[in-house]
Amino acid sequence: MSGTIAFLGLGLMGAPMARRLAQAGVDLTVWNRSREKAAPFEGKARIAETPADAARGAELVCLCLTDAKAVEAVVFGPGGLVEVEGLARVIDFSSIRPDTTRDIAARLKQATGAGWIDAPVSGGVPGAEQGTLAIMAGGSDEDVAVAAPLVESLCARFTHMGPVGAGQTTKLANQIIAGCTITIVAEAVNFAERAGIDASKLFEALGGGFADSKPFQIFGPRMAARDYEKPLGTARLMLKDLDTVRDTARPFDAMLPMTATAAELLRSTAAKDLLDADISALIEMYAGVQKT
Amino acid sequence: MSGTIAFLGLGLMGAPMARRLAQAGVDLTVWNRSREKAAPFEGKARIAETPADAARGAELVCLCLTDAKAVEAVVFGPGGLVEVEGLARVIDFSSIRPDTTRDIAARLKQATGAGWIDAPVSGGVPGAEQGTLAIMAGGSDEDVAVAAPLVESLCARFTHMGPVGAGQTTKLANQIIAGCTITIVAEAVNFAERAGIDASKLFEALGGGFADSKPFQIFGPRMAARDYEKPLGTARLMLKDLDTVRDTARPFDAMLPMTATAAELLRSTAAKDLLDADISALIEMYAGVQKT
Repeated sequence: MSGTIAFLGLGLMGAPMARRLAQAGVDLTVWNRSREKAAPFEGKARIAETPADAARGAELVCLCLTDAKAVEAVVFGPGGLVEVEGLARVIDFSSIRPDTTRDIAARLKQATGAGWIDAPVSGGVPGAEQGTLAIMAGGSDEDVAVAAPLVESLCARFTHMGPVGAGQTTKLANQIIAGCTITIVAEAVNFAERAGIDASKLFEALGGGFADSKPFQIFGPRMAARDYEKPLGTARLMLKDLDTVRDTARPFDAMLPMTATAAELLRSTAAKDLLDADISALIEMYAGVQKT
Repeated sequence: MSGTIAFLGLGLMGAPMARRLAQAGVDLTVWNRSREKAAPFEGKARIAETPADAARGAELVCLCLTDAKAVEAVVFGPGGLVEVEGLARVIDFSSIRPDTTRDIAARLKQATGAGWIDAPVSGGVPGAEQGTLAIMAGGSDEDVAVAAPLVESLCARFTHMGPVGAGQTTKLANQIIAGCTITIVAEAVNFAERAGIDASKLFEALGGGFADSKPFQIFGPRMAARDYEKPLGTARLMLKDLDTVRDTARPFDAMLPMTATAAELLRSTAAKDLLDADISALIEMYAGVQKT
């Protein structure tokens, strides 16, 4: 591994990712909107004052930001990447809409000639800390060929899915399955309970079979126990993704009967003020509170 | 392990299960409706002429039959278990409806006093051959306490889910999740394809994450390749199970929005004469044939 990397956005995911790059011996410059989060990198990386300062001379600029608004600000706002002459290429680990990604990539290319790789990740904070993320990338063959080896220390798997936007679209395909699976698990838990079964036994009984999955093992027991105090993920965030899926699918007429059903069930949690509880609270829309 | 076991039904699943019991040194008697399938057990087990002959004196009678009609015939038909005085207990590995199971169990108990354990399995023929089935059991504590050690050589896991019928209900909960998951995978594959992604890349890209499952890895690639020649499972069989789920849920008002949607999508394959193709053909209801 060689090359100069700028890493912009040192949040929950970004900080451990940048730390791994520093440990891998990369020539690293970091930037964060609030400077405190950059302080722990003192001595391990240069700390820049603006995104443009960080990006000057970098072979690859990494973004790991909250949402499209933050990406827009870092790219086109004051001190943004657009001000960098000879900007090489950007890899954006943020999860944003495919159409927004393509729009930002096109505007930046027109202004600076820089390449863009959208590269949303899955694996969460543990994956970021251990360098075992799965990265789904969209971009040109050339940009991906340069970027992939530079971020090798971050991921267990880097899959080039297609042109710019293909990474974000793949993440949406992931969210279709994840969001619907959580909903189905709630449906099966409620079915079992009403049929008189102790649903807490389902997860061992059906483990390893066709019903098994991470959502089944993680959210199923929470549903059976009506335990959704410390959110691992909320109905609100999943609903945002499933609504994005539907907006994205409309121009190409992909039918989404399961996704639409799951989305409206997730939306119904608003009626019980459970949009920001753990997504397992979806069980209440099927079953009400536990009868113990 | 000790005890005398009768094994009735030596089909695709039953034959390897009975073989494992014989290898484990069980004192075994077998019976099959067509006698040819019993012939390979010559020298390893006694071969009986009727279910009643097989069951006399057995501590446990195992059934592994095609459907409820076959179970009804073996229990109440000519030469059936109902004719055996002092019949101890039956464990039924067949997958049949919970209400039918409870009805058969109650009638046999009234006639003979015998106990009943419904014990549908998951793991398929490989699991039966390797003794790694997952067994979900319904029955009295006493009957399960006697039966579970006797069938230890058949399974990796034996879970006592509740009273008679609870095993079959658990299998239905499994089918809710399995049937809906296959449908969701089709929905995600179609979404990705219409968005311009090579869907054959999804299974590696999303492997190990929240979207991953056996149906995703087994049926997903078949959907992407439009390959459903050699059925691993058909839409017709899954639809039968999902319709049973809906019949079963109605008396206790469990709502099934995802299951009902998946069932009607599976039913729609009839319009293209794909009910008996591999269930992966469901992709055609979303996407039409591949555009290669």
